[in-house]
Amino acid sequence: MTKGSLFEMRSKLKEIYDPTHFRQLGHTLIDLLADHHEASLNAETPRSFPWEPPDTQLQFWEALDKEPTTPEDLFQHILSRSITIHDPRYIGHQVGMPAPTGVLFSLLSSYLNNGMAVYEMGMAANCLEKLIIDECCTRFGLGAHSGGLLTSGGTLANLTAMLSARRAMEDRWRGKTPAILVSEEAHYCIARAAKTMGWPPEAVIHVPTDADFRMQTERLESLYKQAMERGQQVIAVVGCACSTSTGSYDDLEAIADFCEQHDLWFHVDGAHGAAVVFSHTHAHLLKGAERANSIVLDFHKLLMAPALATALLYKNNQDSFRTFEQESAYLLDLQQDWYNSGKRTFECTKYMICAKIYGIVKTHGWDAFGENVDELYENARTFATSIAQRENLVLGAPVQSNILCFRFVEEGLTQEESNAQNAFIRQAIIERGEYYIVQTLLRGYRFLRLAVMNPFTTLTQFEELCTQIESYAKAWHESQ
Amino acid sequence: MTKGSLFEMRSKLKEIYDPTHFRQLGHTLIDLLADHHEASLNAETPRSFPWEPPDTQLQFWEALDKEPTTPEDLFQHILSRSITIHDPRYIGHQVGMPAPTGVLFSLLSSYLNNGMAVYEMGMAANCLEKLIIDECCTRFGLGAHSGGLLTSGGTLANLTAMLSARRAMEDRWRGKTPAILVSEEAHYCIARAAKTMGWPPEAVIHVPTDADFRMQTERLESLYKQAMERGQQVIAVVGCACSTSTGSYDDLEAIADFCEQHDLWFHVDGAHGAAVVFSHTHAHLLKGAERANSIVLDFHKLLMAPALATALLYKNNQDSFRTFEQESAYLLDLQQDWYNSGKRTFECTKYMICAKIYGIVKTHGWDAFGENVDELYENARTFATSIAQRENLVLGAPVQSNILCFRFVEEGLTQEESNAQNAFIRQAIIERGEYYIVQTLLRGYRFLRLAVMNPFTTLTQFEELCTQIESYAKAWHESQ
Repeated sequence: MTKGSLFEMRSKLKEIYDPTHFRQLGHTLIDLLADHHEASLNAETPRSFPWEPPDTQLQFWEALDKEPTTPEDLFQHILSRSITIHDPRYIGHQVGMPAPTGVLFSLLSSYLNNGMAVYEMGMAANCLEKLIIDECCTRFGLGAHSGGLLTSGGTLANLTAMLSARRAMEDRWRGKTPAILVSEEAHYCIARAAKTMGWPPEAVIHVPTDADFRMQTERLESLYKQAMERGQQVIAVVGCACSTSTGSYDDLEAIADFCEQHDLWFHVDGAHGAAVVFSHTHAHLLKGAERANSIVLDFHKLLMAPALATALLYKNNQDSFRTFEQESAYLLDLQQDWYNSGKRTFECTKYMICAKIYGIVKTHGWDAFGENVDELYENARTFATSIAQRENLVLGAPVQSNILCFRFVEEGLTQEESNAQNAFIRQAIIERGEYYIVQTLLRGYRFLRLAVMNPFTTLTQFEELCTQIESYAKAWHESQ
Repeated sequence: MTKGSLFEMRSKLKEIYDPTHFRQLGHTLIDLLADHHEASLNAETPRSFPWEPPDTQLQFWEALDKEPTTPEDLFQHILSRSITIHDPRYIGHQVGMPAPTGVLFSLLSSYLNNGMAVYEMGMAANCLEKLIIDECCTRFGLGAHSGGLLTSGGTLANLTAMLSARRAMEDRWRGKTPAILVSEEAHYCIARAAKTMGWPPEAVIHVPTDADFRMQTERLESLYKQAMERGQQVIAVVGCACSTSTGSYDDLEAIADFCEQHDLWFHVDGAHGAAVVFSHTHAHLLKGAERANSIVLDFHKLLMAPALATALLYKNNQDSFRTFEQESAYLLDLQQDWYNSGKRTFECTKYMICAKIYGIVKTHGWDAFGENVDELYENARTFATSIAQRENLVLGAPVQSNILCFRFVEEGLTQEESNAQNAFIRQAIIERGEYYIVQTLLRGYRFLRLAVMNPFTTLTQFEELCTQIESYAKAWHESQ
């Protein structure tokens, strides 16, 4: 390599890291995002969901890939071809609307890139994580020996909790097949965790739910006995707070009683709904969670942080240190120190998740979380009342959270036809793209499903959506 | 709740989401980061590593937690109490120095918060991910049926690859204990993956390494036979590209031959070093990787993206769809569609990892990756030459990547004393905080360990570090 080419290479890298470019492009992006944000909140754009089928979408990007494009234009293209979560007409999946403060603190994290698994690589970060975790443990009432960690998402947090349970209960299940009891309405990540751990499908014992999609806790005892008789060793019960499809809260007290009685690990998957711990109005839904061995809580759902941002809390912090115990000379020693978070998290390079959460609570107060939850839950109830007043719309379950399932019903249609009609409605809604809603199957029936994630979605907007739904129900007949 | 308090609540939330505040705070942060960036690149601050012990660090944050603080001040505090990866005196762990473009595109991702596991929640994102993966597959020469995904970090990607291997090899290991062969120098996440999957410790069979810390591939055959005789079913061999401690590349061709011969899954953990695929000069280190069943590559190490950003590539894309096959009515159907990335990734809420990677390559070109790698690898060689010229410094292994292990040696010291001396040196260096370096144990000896992650680290700076090392070696004697 000649001196010339080496200099050129360095110039190229100098250009990439140039602070002036950084500053200019940064200011441009901030203005772009702030404009987009304002337009989104005001539902100014024609569509919250710019639907385009995968193949034509891909064609656009493949064509763009072949042309020179400025980063400014690329920002624009990505913005205009993504779903707009800050638009109040986005009432779809449970991914939350991030607060600008959280977004900006995540920029700080991305720039700093402190891979905080070891203390030296995240001195501020490990402290902030501890402050957040301690506050959460206090709010949940987990007691003096509690602790926990932040990790990359609810699926990973639930796996980690299951790994902790497996480890803590080792003496019980050795020589048998371990198993867990969980609501049939649990998120798929619980079954994924079991499968990941090498457990057979029958290790996840599904407890039937009642009419409101809550675990029939009175069935726990017999399911437990049957499992033990089959030679399985039940080690844990997972409570949903709340379930994914309908947002139903299991009776955590009953589960806690059952776990206490049989000395089982009690895990609460509160990825979505444990956020009510910050609400004065709805915290009662978590009664019993204070007796859990582990609790998962996503900050990127109801708590305004950008993804991924999940807390995993333990009643006994020692359990968190035992999950991954193993040796790695260059990185970790085996002390139980709070400040080397990599000993307890799955990740080795661990992103500074804490900054975006702490940025929100330090700027707006911890109570902001409760206020957001209250608003979303109250709006969902208001919308449910509106549904109840409409002749052809029926709820799939009582509204316990910010999740609503309802369907269009019409006399004279078979179940199959009715499902087709509701599928047609949902497809028409998203192709139109003003509103974004999702769908689910509940006991064989197709339901429209809404997660009210934006506190600014108004009743007027919701009623406009209902009107669209009713008109597409008619259109379905014409399409037949 | 009175109307008044509801209005107040909405006002609070309106304030949190206020676009004007977003804009103002955003511009402030950009200026702060650009200033910090400039100072860091120029090593203007006294220390790249503002060392403070965990307990006093925590005291600072606990005190701050009790006081009102503006987000601007909080930004500053986090910046000044974190490690400065953009400072050329940071030569520590393998977390890379993110390019401003990558950082800003990650801001876009955080704002958009498109949880892209389903197509609708990430229309642009799923396309960008496909473009990135396709390009990577081409670069690695994985062939016409290849494919893959982006996921949250190397540890998760390696677990996912092992899950794919376990699934693909199911018919082989059913009724036996599965096992894998891997270099004794492999990253701890391989053992963690095995443990996570419920495998006993002996399922990870460590292949000894040669003097250069490369797998002794000639030992594979006998270790394989012994394992099979013990009733284990070897299903995979993991090659390191490169190893963590010394940055040594296993002979991937030899491993590929062995895997072909025994019909085993060949996995390449290239989290760090597979980045050379983009380098004309160093790509030869990956010879044989084109025959791998799966390859892991981190973009947040040598490829300038902020964490977490990992690619998992498959020779046969079908394998990626089979990893997690299971049902979840509300989210995923079972087709093998490229555009619903959640079917193949561990995460359910999946961050738009693609944007920060694509932002870099679209702005600076794919070749920028190779240029960065070349610069870092060349600088490491230059520093190694400098070490060789110093009387009391010896390398632990030939330099094959951007990772350097060396130690201070002195006649008349026992191994224990020498280790203590090197530990003392490293502690003194980091407490002084100008330079940041790490340490590792190699065959019982303590080595100083450097990952040259910043292409702007100069030989002059490195020599200044060596001078500090030599002076602390003397100081160790005085401290005795």
